[in-house]
Amino acid sequence: MKRSLLALAALTGAAHADEGMWLYNHFPTEKVKAAYGFAPDQAWLDRVRQASVRLEGGCSASFVSAEGLVMTNHHCAEGCIQQLSTPKRDLMAEGFLAKTRAEEAKCPTMGVNILTRIEDVTARVQKAREGKADAEGNEAVKAEIATIEKACQTSPDLRCQVVKLFNGGLYDLYTYRRFEDVRLAFAPEFRAAFFGGDPDNFMFPRYDLDAAFLRVYHEGKPLTPPAHLTWSPNGTQPGDMTFVSGHPGSTSRQQTVAQIETWRDFGLVPRLLYLAELRGALLEYANRGKEQARHSRGLLFGVENGFKAFRGELAALTDPAVLTQKRAEEKAMRDYVAADPKRQAAYGAAWEAIEGAQRLEKTLFFRHQLIEGGRGFSSDLFRHARTLVRAAEELPKPNEKRLREYTEGDWPQRKQGLLSSAPIYPEFEVFTLTWSLGKLREVLGVDDPFVKQVLGNESPAQLAARVIKGTRLKDPKERQKLLDGGAAAIAASKDPLIVLARLVDPEARAVRKRREDEVEAVENRNHELIAKARFEQYGTSVYPDATFTLRLSYGAVQGYEENGKKVEPYTTLGGAFARHTGADPFALPPSWLSRQARLDLTVPYNFVTTNDIIGGNSGSPVVNKEGQVVGLIFDGNIQSLGGDYAFDPAVNRAVAVDSRAILYTLENIYNAAALASELRGSK
Amino acid sequence: MKRSLLALAALTGAAHADEGMWLYNHFPTEKVKAAYGFAPDQAWLDRVRQASVRLEGGCSASFVSAEGLVMTNHHCAEGCIQQLSTPKRDLMAEGFLAKTRAEEAKCPTMGVNILTRIEDVTARVQKAREGKADAEGNEAVKAEIATIEKACQTSPDLRCQVVKLFNGGLYDLYTYRRFEDVRLAFAPEFRAAFFGGDPDNFMFPRYDLDAAFLRVYHEGKPLTPPAHLTWSPNGTQPGDMTFVSGHPGSTSRQQTVAQIETWRDFGLVPRLLYLAELRGALLEYANRGKEQARHSRGLLFGVENGFKAFRGELAALTDPAVLTQKRAEEKAMRDYVAADPKRQAAYGAAWEAIEGAQRLEKTLFFRHQLIEGGRGFSSDLFRHARTLVRAAEELPKPNEKRLREYTEGDWPQRKQGLLSSAPIYPEFEVFTLTWSLGKLREVLGVDDPFVKQVLGNESPAQLAARVIKGTRLKDPKERQKLLDGGAAAIAASKDPLIVLARLVDPEARAVRKRREDEVEAVENRNHELIAKARFEQYGTSVYPDATFTLRLSYGAVQGYEENGKKVEPYTTLGGAFARHTGADPFALPPSWLSRQARLDLTVPYNFVTTNDIIGGNSGSPVVNKEGQVVGLIFDGNIQSLGGDYAFDPAVNRAVAVDSRAILYTLENIYNAAALASELRGSK
Repeated sequence: MKRSLLALAALTGAAHADEGMWLYNHFPTEKVKAAYGFAPDQAWLDRVRQASVRLEGGCSASFVSAEGLVMTNHHCAEGCIQQLSTPKRDLMAEGFLAKTRAEEAKCPTMGVNILTRIEDVTARVQKAREGKADAEGNEAVKAEIATIEKACQTSPDLRCQVVKLFNGGLYDLYTYRRFEDVRLAFAPEFRAAFFGGDPDNFMFPRYDLDAAFLRVYHEGKPLTPPAHLTWSPNGTQPGDMTFVSGHPGSTSRQQTVAQIETWRDFGLVPRLLYLAELRGALLEYANRGKEQARHSRGLLFGVENGFKAFRGELAALTDPAVLTQKRAEEKAMRDYVAADPKRQAAYGAAWEAIEGAQRLEKTLFFRHQLIEGGRGFSSDLFRHARTLVRAAEELPKPNEKRLREYTEGDWPQRKQGLLSSAPIYPEFEVFTLTWSLGKLREVLGVDDPFVKQVLGNESPAQLAARVIKGTRLKDPKERQKLLDGGAAAIAASKDPLIVLARLVDPEARAVRKRREDEVEAVENRNHELIAKARFEQYGTSVYPDATFTLRLSYGAVQGYEENGKKVEPYTTLGGAFARHTGADPFALPPSWLSRQARLDLTVPYNFVTTNDIIGGNSGSPVVNKEGQVVGLIFDGNIQSLGGDYAFDPAVNRAVAVDSRAILYTLENIYNAAALASELRGSK
Repeated sequence: MKRSLLALAALTGAAHADEGMWLYNHFPTEKVKAAYGFAPDQAWLDRVRQASVRLEGGCSASFVSAEGLVMTNHHCAEGCIQQLSTPKRDLMAEGFLAKTRAEEAKCPTMGVNILTRIEDVTARVQKAREGKADAEGNEAVKAEIATIEKACQTSPDLRCQVVKLFNGGLYDLYTYRRFEDVRLAFAPEFRAAFFGGDPDNFMFPRYDLDAAFLRVYHEGKPLTPPAHLTWSPNGTQPGDMTFVSGHPGSTSRQQTVAQIETWRDFGLVPRLLYLAELRGALLEYANRGKEQARHSRGLLFGVENGFKAFRGELAALTDPAVLTQKRAEEKAMRDYVAADPKRQAAYGAAWEAIEGAQRLEKTLFFRHQLIEGGRGFSSDLFRHARTLVRAAEELPKPNEKRLREYTEGDWPQRKQGLLSSAPIYPEFEVFTLTWSLGKLREVLGVDDPFVKQVLGNESPAQLAARVIKGTRLKDPKERQKLLDGGAAAIAASKDPLIVLARLVDPEARAVRKRREDEVEAVENRNHELIAKARFEQYGTSVYPDATFTLRLSYGAVQGYEENGKKVEPYTTLGGAFARHTGADPFALPPSWLSRQARLDLTVPYNFVTTNDIIGGNSGSPVVNKEGQVVGLIFDGNIQSLGGDYAFDPAVNRAVAVDSRAILYTLENIYNAAALASELRGSK
């Protein structure tokens, strides 16, 4: 990677041309206008913002018709597509098209959020911490946030979230409207959506129809959204300006060097090893049979996608240039602080405090992942059992005393998952639980008292088979009954998974509490200090790290250089046929092959832009200066995988499906005339 | 780890008390005497040396009777035990005891080497490089070595090897007598040999009967060895002095910091990820059925063992103290060189030259592993195919022009493997080849021209199934025929595996040649320079890095501290029963359980010593001051896993089976009276 330019810009504190995941309410209009001779006006910003939605599973999306039609990626709708599949009708393999509204199929666990209001609550939140020690201050901040959220949560349709921005420099209360009735309208075949599979994932050139359409319903009818995006008649040309409106999940560009190094060595590497082994096991599990392959592919996709993304991140953090740059940035900020005695007194100790917390984090991180994070108990049913055990304990508490995910803001989403009719595959449950219990034992050690308590005299395979076979939680009604029964029902339950979840819970809470009090609390307080220093220097002329809140990035359609060769910004439908070998994952579906002769193979298919995005942006619309849809983000290139830490404008690219290919394939391959017309109607 | 002491000693250039894998011909007698008040005399050294043998598979062993009886680890004999197993008689599960000599079963691919002579050939080898550029000099050294070996190789029973010591500071010609008729006399059940399995591997306290007995035959009769070790009547007590005589495989204590960092980031991490995924796949493959579990467990053991060892190595290289120490050592040596203009002129450029070669090594290492090292074509049958293809090309060449493994010194061992009757499991072959071709494609990329050439339009699974199904190489007679047919037979062959091996070979040779010429050649020349500087400073008062040559280490029975707790140096048979849960890998075999009531549970079982060992030492005898067997090395503790780079006397421990437990279980569990008597007879 070419990092020299990057380092230079970072040191001066200014973001690059095209760098940044900007808040809508702090969009750098002047800067953009200076660079591109154009910047969106307030009406543009308001409309695109209102048309942008968040999928609770961790993706972005947008309204693309006045009748609640939502565009996102196939891989963002994949959970729904899987859950709606049966042994007889595999929608992942076959694809799905609702010929009528009545055929649109309700997703069991999908939730859509529309942002309706932003309110600055920084003063209230920061005040809560004042004069308190780390752990106590952290608790107070959480309680204050829960209190603010509860006051906002005046209707069950709302989701109120206090979001931390600039690492605690700013706290905003985001109010969303929340919709649970989301239905699948269209999905292509997996072979079209994810052509090239894992080998081509994060690569470009690319040939994927990674698109799906959902429809949001309200009170049984299609929702009329506050705004929707119209479809561009012309798409883009090389060099055209592009905007991406979506919800980047998380970046770490403001982490300290100590945090980055701790994560790399004690978080990233162990997690990669965990994912690598799980991947090997899953690929071979799929050889048990066709059904087993169907049941496991959702997890397999997540594991392979995560593995490749983290592998790229490790490569970036192994490149000495990246850490050299981070060290220089950190030194520059510390020098700025040290240059003024008042600043030094207020903020000067922050970096060392954070570094101190990393000594504990090293030993705690993976233990936390395994016991509290669930990587040692990987099973949908165990997750349900834990939710029941915790709900019984948490829900009776005052809102501000609850664990975060049981507060009134977060509970509805969790409850929806708990009671959903999403299918459970017991054989696969035994497999994942066995495997993850094996990791628990391996990483913590056979002689760890908690491991001994969990396993007793059983092997991981024996324990997993017993609890999955014996549990009645497979039935949503049973889960409803236990939820309704509260603490008494949980205490009395002899269900083996409830028994296991009860046994695990004290240790899980303990490791969570310790990490919150002794690592997170220290990091939070001190990052807030660094954020204040940074504000003093830059104000909001910089952008905050991504936090799964709505952002707007700007850029342009532009190719790049790779190994000395020029990579053109567009591919075509014809390129997909040229890459087709007939062997998965390079096999196009029959719907494409049978129509090949009749297709216009010059239609632009996928393209790249310089927009600064990251995981969570999947499903984001790419819009032009007119605010029209010209594409659909579905990936970043391999060079973007260091983007968690730094943006390299020379080679970091967002990868999108061209809007022209979406419309063309709907009309010419999928016989989806009504859907295409609904999109065209919104021209 | 407590590294401060270590760093100190290293900086002064002196090895620690107990550190070192010493050459028999440069044993530090005075130093040992000063530390322990005892050092072995020449007769002791000669006898123990002559009784120590090398197993060609990568292990150590020793003669323990006048009738050719050899003691080694169960895990060193595992290949043989596996190969002798059938679906009806699984010797790994059941164990094996030959009741008579006639029942002793010939191992298909075992080779035993007895060292008979050492001759210094340093001057000849170093002279070959003089005045030549890196690559050319490297070639000349190899040719000279092949010439020296060929002149020595006067009989097919000999194995002549020029070994590089002190990173090229010393070249010795080692002459071994080589024996192929090696038979299995005794092996316990896997459940006893590897009780605790992977979770307990590299751990202590430990409870493993990791022992097996082989017998070397010559001309159909048990061999009378040049010397053998007698059995100690009393074993050891805490603090007793111990010697370990064996063949440590490889250490990297003299590598430069640039080499270590390159290996860590571009060798070790990718290899760990490779092994992790393969492990996941293998564990799940074993769920296909009992036979599949039997076929795959040999590879699984290797993979898990390697994974855990490399994981420990990575932990050591992530500990900043280790690299800080290495940097200090390197600086000290460079300062010593720089202090004298003549030395500086002769040796001063060596470190930067090696660092320069690392820039290429980063990009070449894993490509080499995949294509030439075989990690992209993991299959016994492919290995045979490549050996046939290369033998046809190499064997007609003059000895000094051949690839190393086809020279007259190395070819007999390779030929034995090629023509052996060791079973082939086609389903497993398809599995490993599919998996590794997938890695080839993943790591090198779908669009790599070599990958495209190999896969064409097939998926890894399709290619693997086709070539394994279609090949006739499963039959050793077919391999013999192709070997006899030479180049013409290979060129004419339509066997799909021969076709594949022919296709792969040019690229495999090219990547090997490039790495040899541009990395290895630079490293070799410059390490020879550093070695000379080191000799000027220390002479042979230091020990050379391990190179699978015979070494003697000294130390004592001694516990250690772990997480603030004292770890006692011995375990007992009773401890194994206490750890038995009934669930594998914590399940003792029926032979033990049925006799539990009658056993003396206080018999010492496993113990630890301070001897400095590493992989390859497996199977080494532990001997006392009298030169008698008191134990059998089978492992190092988890703290020893950084031993590739540095020895930490506080916690680095060798793990051994107590000789008393071996004798006791032979007599009281295995009804092996004759074998026990043969050992006792040698008191």
